[in-house]
Amino acid sequence: MKNKINIGVIGLGTIGSSLVKLLLERRKVFCDRTGIELNLSRVCDKDLGAKKKVKVAKDMFTRDAKIVINDPDIDIVVELVGGVHPAKEIIMSALSQGKHVVTANKLLLATEGYAIFKKAAQMHRQVFFEASVGGGIPIIRSIREGMVANTFSSIFGILNGTSNYILSKMSSEGVSFKSALNEAKQKGYAERDPSLDIKGLDSAHKIAILSLIAFGKIVTIEDVYVEGIENISPIDIQYSKELGYTIKLLAIAKRNGKELEVRVHPTLQPKGYLLSSVSGIYNAVFIDADLVGKQVFYGEGAGKLPTASAVLSDIVDIAYTIVNDNVSSEFIVPKRLEIKTVKKMDDVYTRFYVRFSAIDKPGVLAQIADHLGRYDISIASVVQKERSKAHIVPIVMLTHEAREKDMQNALKKIDSLPVIKKKSVLIRLES
Amino acid sequence: MKNKINIGVIGLGTIGSSLVKLLLERRKVFCDRTGIELNLSRVCDKDLGAKKKVKVAKDMFTRDAKIVINDPDIDIVVELVGGVHPAKEIIMSALSQGKHVVTANKLLLATEGYAIFKKAAQMHRQVFFEASVGGGIPIIRSIREGMVANTFSSIFGILNGTSNYILSKMSSEGVSFKSALNEAKQKGYAERDPSLDIKGLDSAHKIAILSLIAFGKIVTIEDVYVEGIENISPIDIQYSKELGYTIKLLAIAKRNGKELEVRVHPTLQPKGYLLSSVSGIYNAVFIDADLVGKQVFYGEGAGKLPTASAVLSDIVDIAYTIVNDNVSSEFIVPKRLEIKTVKKMDDVYTRFYVRFSAIDKPGVLAQIADHLGRYDISIASVVQKERSKAHIVPIVMLTHEAREKDMQNALKKIDSLPVIKKKSVLIRLES
Repeated sequence: MKNKINIGVIGLGTIGSSLVKLLLERRKVFCDRTGIELNLSRVCDKDLGAKKKVKVAKDMFTRDAKIVINDPDIDIVVELVGGVHPAKEIIMSALSQGKHVVTANKLLLATEGYAIFKKAAQMHRQVFFEASVGGGIPIIRSIREGMVANTFSSIFGILNGTSNYILSKMSSEGVSFKSALNEAKQKGYAERDPSLDIKGLDSAHKIAILSLIAFGKIVTIEDVYVEGIENISPIDIQYSKELGYTIKLLAIAKRNGKELEVRVHPTLQPKGYLLSSVSGIYNAVFIDADLVGKQVFYGEGAGKLPTASAVLSDIVDIAYTIVNDNVSSEFIVPKRLEIKTVKKMDDVYTRFYVRFSAIDKPGVLAQIADHLGRYDISIASVVQKERSKAHIVPIVMLTHEAREKDMQNALKKIDSLPVIKKKSVLIRLES
Repeated sequence: MKNKINIGVIGLGTIGSSLVKLLLERRKVFCDRTGIELNLSRVCDKDLGAKKKVKVAKDMFTRDAKIVINDPDIDIVVELVGGVHPAKEIIMSALSQGKHVVTANKLLLATEGYAIFKKAAQMHRQVFFEASVGGGIPIIRSIREGMVANTFSSIFGILNGTSNYILSKMSSEGVSFKSALNEAKQKGYAERDPSLDIKGLDSAHKIAILSLIAFGKIVTIEDVYVEGIENISPIDIQYSKELGYTIKLLAIAKRNGKELEVRVHPTLQPKGYLLSSVSGIYNAVFIDADLVGKQVFYGEGAGKLPTASAVLSDIVDIAYTIVNDNVSSEFIVPKRLEIKTVKKMDDVYTRFYVRFSAIDKPGVLAQIADHLGRYDISIASVVQKERSKAHIVPIVMLTHEAREKDMQNALKKIDSLPVIKKKSVLIRLES
């Protein structure tokens, strides 16, 4: 029985270099715990300078990924390059060479997942990706294995720590989006170019991956309706609070029969809900499934150590199967083909928070209500705020469930009324 | 490659009969998802009447566990008999016969775990027990696999839904322990004899199992300090609330170097903490580990469907290893031998909530404080309540961290003071 597993790590960014350090420092600990020797055999980064970040023997380092991929001794290739290219090519050729693969690359999986999983199945190799969603939270393993007998009805997640930090800051301190974003940058919680995070794309990649695991549907990024948090203003956070809600950037996958809704957008959540009390850089995933009922998983969703921990859990998982001479792929996802199509956003039903900016004169509310009524949208509650300036009053409304398309059409009509002075603000609500 | 796995279920209580139903009804679903045929081949219950609960072929049912255990076609024996005997004998002989075992029996594992795991290792067979802690929450898998690279510093859990339901009721409605317990019984959340639950023993069994998984220490029930919720009174819940705390029955395993604290007792938790907002029959486990940081897992901790779901996840896990001709035991726990001893409760440091019942006259507080001071116990805050009756006033105190033994000694002295009229109430506080 082989019990030394050779590992090649490609990409020495923050996660890659943390992983290398852990593999070196804890070699004995891992061996004590698992009975397997996790042997780092090669590390690779296109940047020669990256070598300084890790203390490895000179001949262990290479700038050429092919040297890692083609090394016959290597069992597991860890791809931490990020982005689509050359990450895809690295993974595909590693699989071709009979390597197992561990990756944290959510963007790649959300765009090219199908090709990669197909290749892995052909080659009877495993591609594991626990680190791609929720940092150190073992959410993929929990869905895939821990709840294998369940049929899922919905998964809601706060999957992006940067956005959650910004919204939490705006909520607790009443500051603007820009100022909260700046603070996030200063603290290292937001990258210099934070657009993937704040525009909701990072969350979209992650919910696409969770949808695949939980619902057996290959969801590509084009299938996901995405709206970020750039346009959330302190006033809407304030009004939501007064109504008993917190605004969170939620990634949502929800089953309706054979159809799946997959969407990312700012969402009002009732204050008693666990997700609404998740603040700062933390992530949380809410799951509703037929046998286990409601579950929440909460933890740090990013950071080098939690993410490296998730990568290591995948490495150990694969290592066990190798040590036990199990070369067949256990990848169960393609066999869960329960969902046929992704629902069009136009046909999705949610509740809504709407803030109208109207002229302060009698009959305005009636006009708005009339237009909503024509599109079958019924109002759950209305708060008419005192005028702020120049005779314009905010009218804040919560609706009952309504069809997205109807809401959009009604808003178009309402926003063109002479009494409406600014584009109305629409935020969805899930309760 | 074999891909039909034969399963024998022993014990047709609520969980056993749910499991049998799921295995029969979802046979095709499981096969579609996993590629493995989970074939129920035998069911057993000592009570002939139990046969009526499940719709199985006549020759599939037996009252004799040996017939299941000795059936050469059976791959996995599921023990859902409960209790120590004959559950232990069933598991030991199943292992002897080369069967893998799935069990939900926390009492058995917390008392006879060592013998069982040793036997499994000898026979190269697996004993899985996800359902023994936290119902459908995949907590054991998450610790064992998802966080395999981590070193844990603490695990706190609300592991008993019955107790949590009672405490939640007492807190939200101000009712007495008895009345909350009665309601729990009426709703089916408490058994007719609820003592395992309310006395903290059920939680103690579960924390012993989690300690084994996370800290690699075989903890038996004798090692665990256990205090239940029977003596919690509405007045202490009320005072705790005023001070910003919620009382929860926590099961705690906390590492101090090579020593482990393992204890179950009512505990004040600051209101902002996630565990303090877990109410009703829900369970939650808080974990602090070096790589992943803080995580919380939340869900239904009991109930037939969540528990059957956990049993099924174990069955599928084992089925994969059988299908892939992997007969070696992956049981990693015995290799995690990081903890040497369990700390004596006397030496444990916590903060304390204390309620003294004193005569309302000058100098009382000074006397109490003096005695606490002699034992190195420093006071964090004091609230002297208005007198309730007969010149007796409640004095509520929160202390800083102090040694258990010192606190007990100080209380003995204080309770024997002439100014103290009733035994003081002591509840620990974790923050």
